Amino acid sequence: MLRTLTRQFAPINRSSFIRTLATTTIPETQKGVIFYENGGKLEYKDIPVPKPKANEILVNVKYSGVCHTDLHAWKGDWPLPVKLPLVGGHEGAGIVVAKGDSVKNFEIGDIAGIKWLNGSCLSCELCEQGFESNCAHADLSGYTHDGSFQQYATADAVQAAKIPQGTDLANIAPILCAGVTVYKALKTADLKPGQWVAISGAAGGLGSLAVQYAKAMGLRVLGIDGGDAKKELFHSLGGEVFVDFTKEKNVTEAIQNATNGGPHGVINVSVAEAAISQSTEYVRPTGTVVLVGLPAGAVCKSEVFSHVVKSIQIKGSYVGNRADTREAIDFFTRGLVKSPIQVVGLSKLPEVFELMEQGKILGRYVVDTEK
Amino acid sequence: MLRTLTRQFAPINRSSFIRTLATTTIPETQKGVIFYENGGKLEYKDIPVPKPKANEILVNVKYSGVCHTDLHAWKGDWPLPVKLPLVGGHEGAGIVVAKGDSVKNFEIGDIAGIKWLNGSCLSCELCEQGFESNCAHADLSGYTHDGSFQQYATADAVQAAKIPQGTDLANIAPILCAGVTVYKALKTADLKPGQWVAISGAAGGLGSLAVQYAKAMGLRVLGIDGGDAKKELFHSLGGEVFVDFTKEKNVTEAIQNATNGGPHGVINVSVAEAAISQSTEYVRPTGTVVLVGLPAGAVCKSEVFSHVVKSIQIKGSYVGNRADTREAIDFFTRGLVKSPIQVVGLSKLPEVFELMEQGKILGRYVVDTEK
Amino acid sequence: MLRTLTRQFAPINRSSFIRTLATTTIPETQKGVIFYENGGKLEYKDIPVPKPKANEILVNVKYSGVCHTDLHAWKGDWPLPVKLPLVGGHEGAGIVVAKGDSVKNFEIGDIAGIKWLNGSCLSCELCEQGFESNCAHADLSGYTHDGSFQQYATADAVQAAKIPQGTDLANIAPILCAGVTVYKALKTADLKPGQWVAISGAAGGLGSLAVQYAKAMGLRVLGIDGGDAKKELFHSLGGEVFVDFTKEKNVTEAIQNATNGGPHGVINVSVAEAAISQSTEYVRPTGTVVLVGLPAGAVCKSEVFSHVVKSIQIKGSYVGNRADTREAIDFFTRGLVKSPIQVVGLSKLPEVFELMEQGKILGRYVVDTEK
Amino acid sequence: MLRTLTRQFAPINRSSFIRTLATTTIPETQKGVIFYENGGKLEYKDIPVPKPKANEILVNVKYSGVCHTDLHAWKGDWPLPVKLPLVGGHEGAGIVVAKGDSVKNFEIGDIAGIKWLNGSCLSCELCEQGFESNCAHADLSGYTHDGSFQQYATADAVQAAKIPQGTDLANIAPILCAGVTVYKALKTADLKPGQWVAISGAAGGLGSLAVQYAKAMGLRVLGIDGGDAKKELFHSLGGEVFVDFTKEKNVTEAIQNATNGGPHGVINVSVAEAAISQSTEYVRPTGTVVLVGLPAGAVCKSEVFSHVVKSIQIKGSYVGNRADTREAIDFFTRGLVKSPIQVVGLSKLPEVFELMEQGKILGRYVVDTEK
Repeated sequence: MLRTLTRQFAPINRSSFIRTLATTTIPETQKGVIFYENGGKLEYKDIPVPKPKANEILVNVKYSGVCHTDLHAWKGDWPLPVKLPLVGGHEGAGIVVAKGDSVKNFEIGDIAGIKWLNGSCLSCELCEQGFESNCAHADLSGYTHDGSFQQYATADAVQAAKIPQGTDLANIAPILCAGVTVYKALKTADLKPGQWVAISGAAGGLGSLAVQYAKAMGLRVLGIDGGDAKKELFHSLGGEVFVDFTKEKNVTEAIQNATNGGPHGVINVSVAEAAISQSTEYVRPTGTVVLVGLPAGAVCKSEVFSHVVKSIQIKGSYVGNRADTREAIDFFTRGLVKSPIQVVGLSKLPEVFELMEQGKILGRYVVDTEK
Repeated sequence: MLRTLTRQFAPINRSSFIRTLATTTIPETQKGVIFYENGGKLEYKDIPVPKPKANEILVNVKYSGVCHTDLHAWKGDWPLPVKLPLVGGHEGAGIVVAKGDSVKNFEIGDIAGIKWLNGSCLSCELCEQGFESNCAHADLSGYTHDGSFQQYATADAVQAAKIPQGTDLANIAPILCAGVTVYKALKTADLKPGQWVAISGAAGGLGSLAVQYAKAMGLRVLGIDGGDAKKELFHSLGGEVFVDFTKEKNVTEAIQNATNGGPHGVINVSVAEAAISQSTEYVRPTGTVVLVGLPAGAVCKSEVFSHVVKSIQIKGSYVGNRADTREAIDFFTRGLVKSPIQVVGLSKLPEVFELMEQGKILGRYVVDTEK
Repeated sequence: MLRTLTRQFAPINRSSFIRTLATTTIPETQKGVIFYENGGKLEYKDIPVPKPKANEILVNVKYSGVCHTDLHAWKGDWPLPVKLPLVGGHEGAGIVVAKGDSVKNFEIGDIAGIKWLNGSCLSCELCEQGFESNCAHADLSGYTHDGSFQQYATADAVQAAKIPQGTDLANIAPILCAGVTVYKALKTADLKPGQWVAISGAAGGLGSLAVQYAKAMGLRVLGIDGGDAKKELFHSLGGEVFVDFTKEKNVTEAIQNATNGGPHGVINVSVAEAAISQSTEYVRPTGTVVLVGLPAGAVCKSEVFSHVVKSIQIKGSYVGNRADTREAIDFFTRGLVKSPIQVVGLSKLPEVFELMEQGKILGRYVVDTEK
Repeated sequence: MLRTLTRQFAPINRSSFIRTLATTTIPETQKGVIFYENGGKLEYKDIPVPKPKANEILVNVKYSGVCHTDLHAWKGDWPLPVKLPLVGGHEGAGIVVAKGDSVKNFEIGDIAGIKWLNGSCLSCELCEQGFESNCAHADLSGYTHDGSFQQYATADAVQAAKIPQGTDLANIAPILCAGVTVYKALKTADLKPGQWVAISGAAGGLGSLAVQYAKAMGLRVLGIDGGDAKKELFHSLGGEVFVDFTKEKNVTEAIQNATNGGPHGVINVSVAEAAISQSTEYVRPTGTVVLVGLPAGAVCKSEVFSHVVKSIQIKGSYVGNRADTREAIDFFTRGLVKSPIQVVGLSKLPEVFELMEQGKILGRYVVDTEK
């Protein structure tokens, strides 16, 4: 169907000409989930379709993943205030249906991804060096910019993800944040193929993606998690050594023995403070501990003496930039990484949040914006 | 005067609203030097003032450096075709007098630099990693986009250089291309403070800037050039050892002896084919030879056996990206690099080209657009 | 059997005490292949067993690979003179049977590998940074130090390769030079998992190892070679795209199309001058061309204009250092790399050289020192 | 005098022949300071001159710096046990008077430095990559190996520092540990010339060396310390901005304002736990905090949320390796770094320790082994 779309130019708003679809009508209103205050009612209702600015594309979102961050945003858990009212969501996959006048890198009919970093200034010292996520003027989908829990969302064209034609849009949705985040964390660990990486929280949502990316990057993977079901899942994803913290008496020793002196890198997708501190102990001398989860109020602690004498490093890894996103998607589209998802209608989002808050979610929920 | 400027919004063209100066009138026409075919007449005359697009700023160019590339562009020397008719120039410094609707990183009254890379796609694999100059869709000032040999020029806001208030605009002009280019070449050599760098062509226009940047970066500088005047200039700029190729019998040996085994890096601003080949011989084992000049038709040759056994590398370095530009300007504004210039009126540009073609130019000519 | 060995101390030579085997008698003479002048007769005969110095181990070589370099050494093809008379060979795998007094990193009964770099000064600027192979005082097995074409060879303990107990000594032999060399070349290309690497000469002895290492490092592999048999071999090793230079009209275009713009890195194991030059054309912008073969008298040529504008780099990669060796062996012992070998008796070495000179060898010959 | 030394071979001990001085007599006994238990009496008395092993040199120590680590070693403060009885000291500068049979990189009469890392295994994964200080088998001067508080000390030749002829041996002594340590910390911060580095504890013994090295590396230096005298010292060493923590109300804000967003790197030579934590707050986004001091029992704390969102890294930096040492010495011998010292006789060492324990030492004490 996408192949029959034709491009033409039509004026849309006062400030710029926008190229849009000839054969499809972009509606004036759409379904979306919106809230007006932190922790307030999540309303599934008709809201206006936004208009893209000169530098934006308008994406007809088909599917959107649901991330813990969406829950944090709704509840207002973090120091950074959210836009209100807000349409959340930052793992959206859909079709470009209109674009602003300055947009050169997307055509109508292309597949695009809405991701956490919607846009940045592109000209500060951080942006210039590819640290766009760290830009002081970062604009965040589903946080400071209306996100993917609606049928039509705008996105800064420079940051929007490019997705190859033919990709399964439901399955790729979680890659746009969860996948990119763990892939970026692995890049941050700066390991060489053949080295050991430990994934703390290896069988959870982020962890199981991390195991697959690590494997595809030529790393040897040790997973830390609890229980036989998790062990089985871990090995089925390509993991090599599993350390069950519910059974192992001395986790540090077990990890160091299995890796001949400690893993070269550790990815802390588990957000337990104690697990983070422990990772600074079992990591190999000169190795790298990566922090990637965002537990509210947690503190990372390491003993200065061994931090120095072992010359380890503790690095924070935030979300990926444009290059990380392209690469993470490429591993997915080449079939090297799979994300187990459960699809429900967008109207069920409040129930998904409830399950999430109760800690009852395994894997990733994806909402279908048409239901 | 700039401090009294006020910002307001006013419609300018059909496609976007553009913020412009309230208290200044942007004229409809201006003076510029234009040519209609390669090698054709360079006409100094009234031409229309261009209108910035949504993503562009309009810069009232005060001064522009004149670079060898401008001569190549006019003559059509390179494989890449130029826009015709063309206003050349890519070392322009001036004041932002208007801006497109999407521009967030410049305000009216800011100082901006027009540089070689006017814009790129920002979303290809190369742009994503900061190699914007290598983008297949790179738009080049004074080559594929009208440049700084006019009083008002447009520039993509993301790529335009930010220049601190109070900077001498005539003196900074050559930094925008010549300065950035040699600074980038030095970064490409990837040296550590305390290591030796050789500058082949050390006392020419690019070379004398390279010597100063290298010095400011903590490197030890060996210069290769010919004649006592050049030797004196070299040492006055902070150079440590001068090898005069007109006097030295064995240049390779002289360089290796002076640097205890060869320089760790070599910057070939000289474009002589033989000098380039020779640099692959005298460079230190595991060292880096950087190619930066663009001699038409030249070939870089190295002996495979010693290339491998010495494990050297030969790297091409093109112009700088946004970060390189900011950094190169910072060294200049901190007073660590000086560029000897000669200022003439823009109307004299044809005469400058003539001198350049005759090889009669020492240092850098800068044109004043008001004359 | 090795497990029953006991260590004890016994004086061996005038200059140091050497620990040796209690239960084995190290003979005074042994079988080896020796030559007295370049290109002279290769004599298989009884020669004295060498005595290890304080810093050396004595290895009872079981198997040794035969490398083109051994042929070059015998013929005296290279600018660097060989020791005469000489026992060649630098891919030897065997058992440590004695060691000098300063040796701390090997025990009697350990498995050790004799490799190209026998020893270096360890205290020059190059050695300090891990570029031991580039040390001006490098001592080379089978070139400046008697090598592995004998039953007992000495090796500097610091550089000798550590091989895990239980390893197949015939199969690992070629890894000690051929394997390490291509692995090092791949590291020199400095690629990230998911990027494209082209192997020029992909189905030859070095090439087929390179394909496997590249695959294990998470790279996508394009092979260049000629003929259907080679194509089949290439794909069986995990290669993704094969370009047959005997069939393809435009090799550069075919490679760039298959890799969406050119490979990020190229490993030139083929030593044809034209193939090397061509690789500087088809490599991706900002990509890396690696030179690894040592064709006598060949010159590497690249066009300066595109070298600069595409910002490519051409790097020489010599043999691996201690870390490269350990890592290359680890990939082998984990079963990720296989080396197809043909085993013959050491006494047949002259015939192997003859076949090699006639270009009749596919894969790698390994000599059994007991025959 | 050194120029008249001649080399010859003479047997010294049972295990190896050692080359020694012909024209000097190496005595059987010497003066040194020795202790027999932690915190026990520091005895200045006649002790035997040690014999070098095959891989060692014997250095006639002329001067030795006194470091806090020497105090810790004597008192037994750290988890790692010291050799007993022990001659401390690891900043010794002197003349090579004998050498073992395997030593190739030193000649009799050369100048050598005794430094913290006396030797390592050279063949573990860490040593192979230049992390010799982190080797599990590291042998430490003045800790597990008798050090430089004696007239004649042995040193592993591979690790011993090479010092150019003509160097002032009293002045270079503190460079061998204090200088190398701060230089290594600066390298660990991985900054580019032109970036900001903050030195926490800028006017102390280590800090004032760090300021000078940073300056010589092209960095912009912000110093944090207390009092006008320290401010003055800091600026006299080339520091640019001084933040006086005794006067500044909001240190974090003052640092971030002065550096336009925070320093790119921070070197914590101050060992106060609170200062370390604070440095994780004021460091620039994506910047690097380096831990270098070894306060007993201290913990490094950072808030996980900002650690991740700012993507900072905290790196431990231990002592330098062979390359770091050579480079740090080179900055000193080129006159770019000066170390203010006070020279006393070796017999006064107990009094120096006493002053050190009372915190009464500014700058560095150096002992003259002949007094």
